[in-house]
Amino acid sequence: MADIALIAKQFTDFYYATFDSAANRSNLVSLYRDSSMLTWEGEQHQGSATIVQKITSLPFNTVQHKVTTIDAQPSSPAIASLIVSVTGLLVVDDSTLALNFSQVFHLIPDGGSYYVFNDIFRLNYG
Amino acid sequence: MADIALIAKQFTDFYYATFDSAANRSNLVSLYRDSSMLTWEGEQHQGSATIVQKITSLPFNTVQHKVTTIDAQPSSPAIASLIVSVTGLLVVDDSTLALNFSQVFHLIPDGGSYYVFNDIFRLNYG
Repeated sequence: MADIALIAKQFTDFYYATFDSAANRSNLVSLYRDSSMLTWEGEQHQGSATIVQKITSLPFNTVQHKVTTIDAQPSSPAIASLIVSVTGLLVVDDSTLALNFSQVFHLIPDGGSYYVFNDIFRLNYG
Repeated sequence: MADIALIAKQFTDFYYATFDSAANRSNLVSLYRDSSMLTWEGEQHQGSATIVQKITSLPFNTVQHKVTTIDAQPSSPAIASLIVSVTGLLVVDDSTLALNFSQVFHLIPDGGSYYVFNDIFRLNYG
């Protein structure tokens, strides 16, 4: 499981660093394919262009993901895919209020790298 | 996606009703296989017997899952598997303090029903 945990850590480090940079967020398009799905706060989006349009049009100027936990498991006996479950805090627009979030990624191997097939994001209100 | 959402709802209704009944919790063994994985608060367990031993030995007398959100997506282009992401509140031993939790299930079709291949549970501390 060591490799799985390392892949999950490297993926989430890259994902959230890119997401949290307004200038770079659109680069996340390279992580998705036409078959990829995003469910964002219950809203369903499919395909890399649609998904990235959604995440680049969110109504905040600055955002910071502070990751608390990362758990990963292999998701298939047949291929080296993995499910990554993340929990953490989201700080938006320098608010002093951090919101709990949870996010799930299903990563599929693709030529030495991975793409995101499933992506489910939720804020967790207490 | 209607079917997927319905399957996810029926599965989580059954799962948490069974989990929250101390007398019935061990029946969850039928939902797992030898290849199934559970990551519980970062602790890894594999196989139906091991998983059910873990969830029946948790240090509380009564527990209630109050589900807030259920999101589901098909997880494979090849088979009718699905990823279900749940957020909600956990009330333990009649405490007045409810804890946020998030849980991810990866369900694999098996003879007209589904088994749990991946299960990741986390409490979300604010």
